[in-house]
Amino acid sequence: MKIAIAQLNYHIGNFDGNLAKMLKAIDWAKEQNADLVCFSELATCGYPPRDFLEFDDFINLCDETIQKLAQASDEIGIVVGSPSKNPVIEGKDLFNSVYLLYNKKVEFVQHKALLPTYDVFDEYRYFEPATEFSTVVFKGKRIALTVCEDIWNIGNENPLYTVCPLDEMIADDPDFIINVSASPFNYDHAEARIHVLKANVKRYKKPMFYVNHVGAQTEIIFDGGSVVMRPDGKVYEELPYFEEGYRIYDLEDVEQGKENILQPKDKILEIHDAIVLGIKDYFGKLGFTKAIVGLSGGIDSAVTTVLAARALGPENVRVVLMPSQFSSDHSVNDAVALAENLGMQYDIIPIKDLYDGFMDKLSPIFKDLPFNVTEENIQARSRGVLLMAMSNKFGNILLNTSNKSEMAVGYGTLYGDMCGGLSVIGDVYKTDVFTLAEYINKDGVVIPINTITKPPSAELRPNQKDSDSLPEYEILDEILYKYIEGQLGPKEIIALGFDEKLVRRILRLVNINEFKRYQTAPVLRVSSKAFGMGRRVPIVGKYLS
Amino acid sequence: MKIAIAQLNYHIGNFDGNLAKMLKAIDWAKEQNADLVCFSELATCGYPPRDFLEFDDFINLCDETIQKLAQASDEIGIVVGSPSKNPVIEGKDLFNSVYLLYNKKVEFVQHKALLPTYDVFDEYRYFEPATEFSTVVFKGKRIALTVCEDIWNIGNENPLYTVCPLDEMIADDPDFIINVSASPFNYDHAEARIHVLKANVKRYKKPMFYVNHVGAQTEIIFDGGSVVMRPDGKVYEELPYFEEGYRIYDLEDVEQGKENILQPKDKILEIHDAIVLGIKDYFGKLGFTKAIVGLSGGIDSAVTTVLAARALGPENVRVVLMPSQFSSDHSVNDAVALAENLGMQYDIIPIKDLYDGFMDKLSPIFKDLPFNVTEENIQARSRGVLLMAMSNKFGNILLNTSNKSEMAVGYGTLYGDMCGGLSVIGDVYKTDVFTLAEYINKDGVVIPINTITKPPSAELRPNQKDSDSLPEYEILDEILYKYIEGQLGPKEIIALGFDEKLVRRILRLVNINEFKRYQTAPVLRVSSKAFGMGRRVPIVGKYLS
Repeated sequence: MKIAIAQLNYHIGNFDGNLAKMLKAIDWAKEQNADLVCFSELATCGYPPRDFLEFDDFINLCDETIQKLAQASDEIGIVVGSPSKNPVIEGKDLFNSVYLLYNKKVEFVQHKALLPTYDVFDEYRYFEPATEFSTVVFKGKRIALTVCEDIWNIGNENPLYTVCPLDEMIADDPDFIINVSASPFNYDHAEARIHVLKANVKRYKKPMFYVNHVGAQTEIIFDGGSVVMRPDGKVYEELPYFEEGYRIYDLEDVEQGKENILQPKDKILEIHDAIVLGIKDYFGKLGFTKAIVGLSGGIDSAVTTVLAARALGPENVRVVLMPSQFSSDHSVNDAVALAENLGMQYDIIPIKDLYDGFMDKLSPIFKDLPFNVTEENIQARSRGVLLMAMSNKFGNILLNTSNKSEMAVGYGTLYGDMCGGLSVIGDVYKTDVFTLAEYINKDGVVIPINTITKPPSAELRPNQKDSDSLPEYEILDEILYKYIEGQLGPKEIIALGFDEKLVRRILRLVNINEFKRYQTAPVLRVSSKAFGMGRRVPIVGKYLS
Repeated sequence: MKIAIAQLNYHIGNFDGNLAKMLKAIDWAKEQNADLVCFSELATCGYPPRDFLEFDDFINLCDETIQKLAQASDEIGIVVGSPSKNPVIEGKDLFNSVYLLYNKKVEFVQHKALLPTYDVFDEYRYFEPATEFSTVVFKGKRIALTVCEDIWNIGNENPLYTVCPLDEMIADDPDFIINVSASPFNYDHAEARIHVLKANVKRYKKPMFYVNHVGAQTEIIFDGGSVVMRPDGKVYEELPYFEEGYRIYDLEDVEQGKENILQPKDKILEIHDAIVLGIKDYFGKLGFTKAIVGLSGGIDSAVTTVLAARALGPENVRVVLMPSQFSSDHSVNDAVALAENLGMQYDIIPIKDLYDGFMDKLSPIFKDLPFNVTEENIQARSRGVLLMAMSNKFGNILLNTSNKSEMAVGYGTLYGDMCGGLSVIGDVYKTDVFTLAEYINKDGVVIPINTITKPPSAELRPNQKDSDSLPEYEILDEILYKYIEGQLGPKEIIALGFDEKLVRRILRLVNINEFKRYQTAPVLRVSSKAFGMGRRVPIVGKYLS
């Protein structure tokens, strides 16, 4: 039996586009004489469709896509994920299902039982969990069809669910297992995924075809990396990450375990490629081509600009330098050098006059109150107005350049440097931004060395440095990581040897600045816990604040 | 048996504050010789604690609060909601539980089975559903203890769950039922709640004590309105809305059905009181006292200002008038009249110079490109910078004045008039803003009549009116309501008789403007479907866009 995998980049709600991609893959699979072609979870409508699922109209469009795909299943079996209506009045109205289409009709449907409802996932918001499990015979082979999380309750110390769908299906003695997934990237996830697949195959001793979604949907980046597993527990082939791909396998070859193709894994390489794809899809799927970035001469805007140039082409990224009276000469020089290295159009707009204009209006009201964060913010917000004006006039999406460390502690100006349609490095700690800059420069200097080596500064008051008000980033990032990704409390972090006062101060800063993050652009997610949909904390809380 | 109800305003994560409130109520109940005192769902930590629940440290603080409450249960039974740890390794780590404390120890715990995971609710994100149900005997009476949603699967045409906890518990023949709730306000919800309580009592024929949370937690406003139900299906007493309260009941009186106290229900009155409470708690729980509002002379900022004045006191609300070259004289006059009616401090800062300052910088870049939304936005954003500067300098939280109609169609400037820490009327359609203004003026003119009667305008270009680019609000709001609250698709709305082109244009505007709403302040929720946490739609989608 020949089984094809199509690892595709879907677009939420773009039914025509998704259908066309699948039909093209079906044609290819037919040319290869495939018996079966597999797509990923909720491939008809894209993943995650979120509250669009609550519209009957949207579900009808999913059903229509299934019917159209069925028409193409005359000679080939098609495995594809789509929502399906729950015929029972009690319970949620939908299932998250995997279909087998063949002979121009729906041959078989299995619903998903384990509904991820944590981090960025909300599946129990929409779907009823399956309680019945069966397998299907196709061209003489018995197949266990599963959806994403259904295979993830195996190989964990603290399983999230009380049932395990394959334990039920395995009683039928299937010849192989298919899993249709929409499993998003984080820089630890590819390893975790291989671990879970191995645990499954070791338990059931069947070949497994794991088909993942690739492509970004707003902040969530699906990395692909579909995997074919041999029944002996080894990887037969791991597909490339961050790109679409077709593959075809002979089931016998997989059973006999002739190959073993693995992809390289490296945190910074993966973050780099994930963000480039994230930017590309944000623009492409929204129908935009051009970005604008405020370039300060610092490392955050430099890295953001390079990533944008790699995603969109340098000709589509416009940069603006907006020095204030507190900007150093080297900042302007470093920013110009970067723009020139990238061959980019740049404008220089000094903001002192704008700042003075605001202060003229406000000084009768402020009277003799001293310079403080207010005046710093006026500079940042004047830049925001300029950048957004250019965004509006020329149709460039403004990219936000905040890093995760500063977003965490609120070291940024709401409606100022926190402006932008997409946060590019908002899930990258400052220490990783430096590593990313070095990775970018690995084949030659793109980001000026001075941008990387000088002490970080917001340059909003004379001789300001980040380290005036924050601890060194090496320490800050470690504490933040333990709190945000690690979900450790203050006592646990202090017990690891960090200074109590510092830990309490940092955790407090994180918690009292939730109101700023609430109003931030979507953040491209590269870690296991990004700000945004995946981290939901009350603004008006009094915990650690 | 004497049963006390304490309808209290909790604060998320404020363990000391919540404990102190409950101890005070326990003292009162003891003085009244109550046998039992009842608090609401997750009263120890406040509701909804969201991802704070993922911190062991937070759960330990909940457990410590339970232990402290138990110490006060020497002579009185205490019914209180709190998270509890799941001892089983499979499944989620927590239950959402109701405790009975007595004799200084935990007498009984029942876990919640029906976990709301829709709209603003995310309970299955954190909690394992109960599968076992029992009742408890306390001082000779058998009690069925339930948590919020556990009684909501009754009386619906399309029940969300496949189990019904009280169907199991009723086999024990309990003497009465207690339900501890955190059931948030919307202007249809009090009716729905009474309907569900009646359906329960009619089915089980037992008295029921329903104890709700009161008070706002960021955007979600809990309205109180706790209810005591007679076994014959009638209301014995409905507690007041939007305020704390203690009550004590003799079980025999409730069984015999001597009273019937109901609260008045009126949509606009409820919205008014809900928003006033929402503002008050947002400020109070964050530790702020003062607000600032940009006053345009239009109805949205006028209504917002009055509601803020009623929540915080007029002396704590500062208003700023920022006319541009396109502002009409009457706008300034109307705004001044409002400020004077309220006895409020106001400043006037004309923004033409600031606008010209930006245009001076940008005109070499914009060259001969015509005036468009860019220049409109520069005005709105200059105002944003001024307001935020005053917010920063004086510690006033800026209130956002956008209404739901304009937020829906994207008729607002991101980082301009969409600035602010809290959206006051962002869940109130424009047509309801007018009704709210009339309600505010019912005992005498507060909002100048001209503000109410003149045609709405953003005044960002010469002679601009909202109706230049939007349909009349009566039509717009009806279509929006059917799409947003009603979750009807385009075909269904058109089938109701609305113009097809208009419907498609409006739905498209809603969907393509999700990126703006994503960056908006939390919106005080008064409808069944507010923008924010309760409505999760993809930015990068292609549905109806």
